[in-house]
Amino acid sequence: MHEELRKAVCQANIELQTHNLVIYSWGNVSGIDRSASVVAIKPSGVPYDQLTPDKIVLLDLDGKIVEGDLRPSSDTPTHLELYRNFDVIGGVCHTHSVNASMWAQACREIPCLGTTHADFFYGPVPVTDVMTADEIKSNYELNTGKVIVRRFADLDPIEIPGVLVANHGPFTWGKTPAATVEAAVVLEQMAAMAMGTLLINPNQDKISQVLLDKHYLRKHGKDAYYGQK
Amino acid sequence: MHEELRKAVCQANIELQTHNLVIYSWGNVSGIDRSASVVAIKPSGVPYDQLTPDKIVLLDLDGKIVEGDLRPSSDTPTHLELYRNFDVIGGVCHTHSVNASMWAQACREIPCLGTTHADFFYGPVPVTDVMTADEIKSNYELNTGKVIVRRFADLDPIEIPGVLVANHGPFTWGKTPAATVEAAVVLEQMAAMAMGTLLINPNQDKISQVLLDKHYLRKHGKDAYYGQK
Amino acid sequence: MHEELRKAVCQANIELQTHNLVIYSWGNVSGIDRSASVVAIKPSGVPYDQLTPDKIVLLDLDGKIVEGDLRPSSDTPTHLELYRNFDVIGGVCHTHSVNASMWAQACREIPCLGTTHADFFYGPVPVTDVMTADEIKSNYELNTGKVIVRRFADLDPIEIPGVLVANHGPFTWGKTPAATVEAAVVLEQMAAMAMGTLLINPNQDKISQVLLDKHYLRKHGKDAYYGQK
Amino acid sequence: MHEELRKAVCQANIELQTHNLVIYSWGNVSGIDRSASVVAIKPSGVPYDQLTPDKIVLLDLDGKIVEGDLRPSSDTPTHLELYRNFDVIGGVCHTHSVNASMWAQACREIPCLGTTHADFFYGPVPVTDVMTADEIKSNYELNTGKVIVRRFADLDPIEIPGVLVANHGPFTWGKTPAATVEAAVVLEQMAAMAMGTLLINPNQDKISQVLLDKHYLRKHGKDAYYGQK
Repeated sequence: MHEELRKAVCQANIELQTHNLVIYSWGNVSGIDRSASVVAIKPSGVPYDQLTPDKIVLLDLDGKIVEGDLRPSSDTPTHLELYRNFDVIGGVCHTHSVNASMWAQACREIPCLGTTHADFFYGPVPVTDVMTADEIKSNYELNTGKVIVRRFADLDPIEIPGVLVANHGPFTWGKTPAATVEAAVVLEQMAAMAMGTLLINPNQDKISQVLLDKHYLRKHGKDAYYGQK
Repeated sequence: MHEELRKAVCQANIELQTHNLVIYSWGNVSGIDRSASVVAIKPSGVPYDQLTPDKIVLLDLDGKIVEGDLRPSSDTPTHLELYRNFDVIGGVCHTHSVNASMWAQACREIPCLGTTHADFFYGPVPVTDVMTADEIKSNYELNTGKVIVRRFADLDPIEIPGVLVANHGPFTWGKTPAATVEAAVVLEQMAAMAMGTLLINPNQDKISQVLLDKHYLRKHGKDAYYGQK
Repeated sequence: MHEELRKAVCQANIELQTHNLVIYSWGNVSGIDRSASVVAIKPSGVPYDQLTPDKIVLLDLDGKIVEGDLRPSSDTPTHLELYRNFDVIGGVCHTHSVNASMWAQACREIPCLGTTHADFFYGPVPVTDVMTADEIKSNYELNTGKVIVRRFADLDPIEIPGVLVANHGPFTWGKTPAATVEAAVVLEQMAAMAMGTLLINPNQDKISQVLLDKHYLRKHGKDAYYGQK
Repeated sequence: MHEELRKAVCQANIELQTHNLVIYSWGNVSGIDRSASVVAIKPSGVPYDQLTPDKIVLLDLDGKIVEGDLRPSSDTPTHLELYRNFDVIGGVCHTHSVNASMWAQACREIPCLGTTHADFFYGPVPVTDVMTADEIKSNYELNTGKVIVRRFADLDPIEIPGVLVANHGPFTWGKTPAATVEAAVVLEQMAAMAMGTLLINPNQDKISQVLLDKHYLRKHGKDAYYGQK
């Protein structure tokens, strides 16, 4: 059942390690089959080296296990909340990658300081509110999803394919499980560049809207002209 | 004699190198068989590539060699002092890993700035007092253990599985030799993240007690729900 | 046709990845056959692992495709503008390497702070003007070349084999495609060293003209005495 | 002739690359046979991958080539000056390793901020005077040696096995070619730790003389008790 989805999710999780975004089992990727409303996600606490497609857990959008003997990632309720609210996404990724986590821990959005950023995120990488004691005490992982969704009330999750959860770390998403990992890799690189930029020039301002438009739109949307057709 | 313990200690020492926590012979891991009161530790100055289980030195808790032709790590008296005082631990690890050593050299505890930290340390990573001239001049390695134990007068070594020795570097511990290496890896990553966080936002405060409780207790203790049963 | 040039350009592009200057397809190298006025460049968006000499695109200096089924790098008009204006160069390279991009994003030239820099760049690494809205809106990539050329009105592109495009990242060049990659590697290393130097000593001034002359000229020009004859 | 010395010098040069202290051909190691007054050194500009013992150049202490078809490292006069003045050393190493070069470029000595440093350098890592225009203009490499020797007027080159040449980078030395590389690796690590320490705590002072004595002397000298007999 859902063999292709399992494979894609398994492969994307393994790539977290290949790209040095995670150590031990500190990250998870999921994917969704929208036609069947089935989500596939990494099992909790399993090392990437031991991950095979048959260990991927299948759930419905309410979190009921459809297939799988293992417990799903403890972050599953966050993933599900994102799928329920961002109709356009096909995958979600969570890591504690070092540079992005620094910004998340600093509770600071990453300003768009250059074209590397503008090629992938159509504006700053937002940071959520710090979660309240009530939001943390019960249904913490669900509420983590809710603070992300709230932060995106006026943002397009396709144009901004990721967020920093304050005090915590990054979540990214995209049309496929593989795309969420690419977003996580790019975010990690952007985060490192942004910190260095501000160490060199603490007063550096964000790039102009015109330059942001140019770079984002040359890679995305109907007038894109980057890559092969 | 104590073949399993020797193997576990040998393997844990080798992993210090695998995880890039050490260069040359700058780190050591030990383990204890509590039923026999026998400690197994790395021989002094031997490169990890040349380490085999039969080279691991066995001692009693007073430091008397039980078995082994090589001299034990020069840090052995520190390890023994920790075993004598922290009944719950089964292993000790010492490294000069770069990021953790920066904090130790800065004589600053690592504040809990995010959930990566909270998943493993139930509070800030403490730093010991700077050792006095008398403590350094005689029985230096024993006294290193004593300043650690003193720093933990009101702390639980299971909840806080490591310390920064001021001017020096980190010691970590845990239930098994392997667990001490995981703690050292995590501490190194946390130390890097904490420095970056404060470079981005020098005024960033520690996370709330509620968030610390949530993350630590979802991975540790009777109500933990991370990982497979 | 132009088999040697294709091979050299293909190899130089692959080395961008070997030297950790790029991830995904974030960089491109071109080369020129001056006698035929033919430029060979990486195809747009193709991963380095899949690059073979037959995929390299050949164009004339006006950007008309001479041979090749794939679309050339979207940065092609920048490369062509540099070839049209810098007669002495035989290759051009563009990356988003992390440390050089930090300086480009900070809109700061890299001062010559040491002999590593002086061995390769005969003065500071210049940064272009921030591009105007008009320059960005139409013919952006061509105008990127024009702001570089404008910045070099009084500079020698052989003595200064690279530039930082403000808000963007580095371009380097040289006599051959391989030489442009070496310049990019060196620039990345210099950029990292310069940032660290100023973190240690924010008031550090550039080195003397005498020392710059000494190091640059012992490796370049008629009186060079570095390397084998 | 001097086959053992050639092999040791060749191997030490190759290890510069293994330990990530150099890129391209940016570093050189030499060794001396004191009984014959013959120095063996890397040929200039030859990549480490192509280095074999027969390519190592042999010279006398005045710089006259004794054997070898290749030109010796352009830094040879610096090495020779060190051999002529520091009787106790058997090898010299020069690199542009990133972190040590940052301190050299910042014209700042590396204070002894912790036991990692104290285990290898018996005090701060000194920085030379900035060289004068006259010293640079003629016999530059010889004068580089002279400013190092001048800086060591009151220092013991065995206790302090390296130096930072202002505006330039590190030189290290030791009893054998291999020992000079170990000193260079350690210096690079100490330099990184020292920068991080001061970023975390800009007011951190050097460690006490008692702690410096303890760590240096437990590894060096007649009362050393680190390692195997």
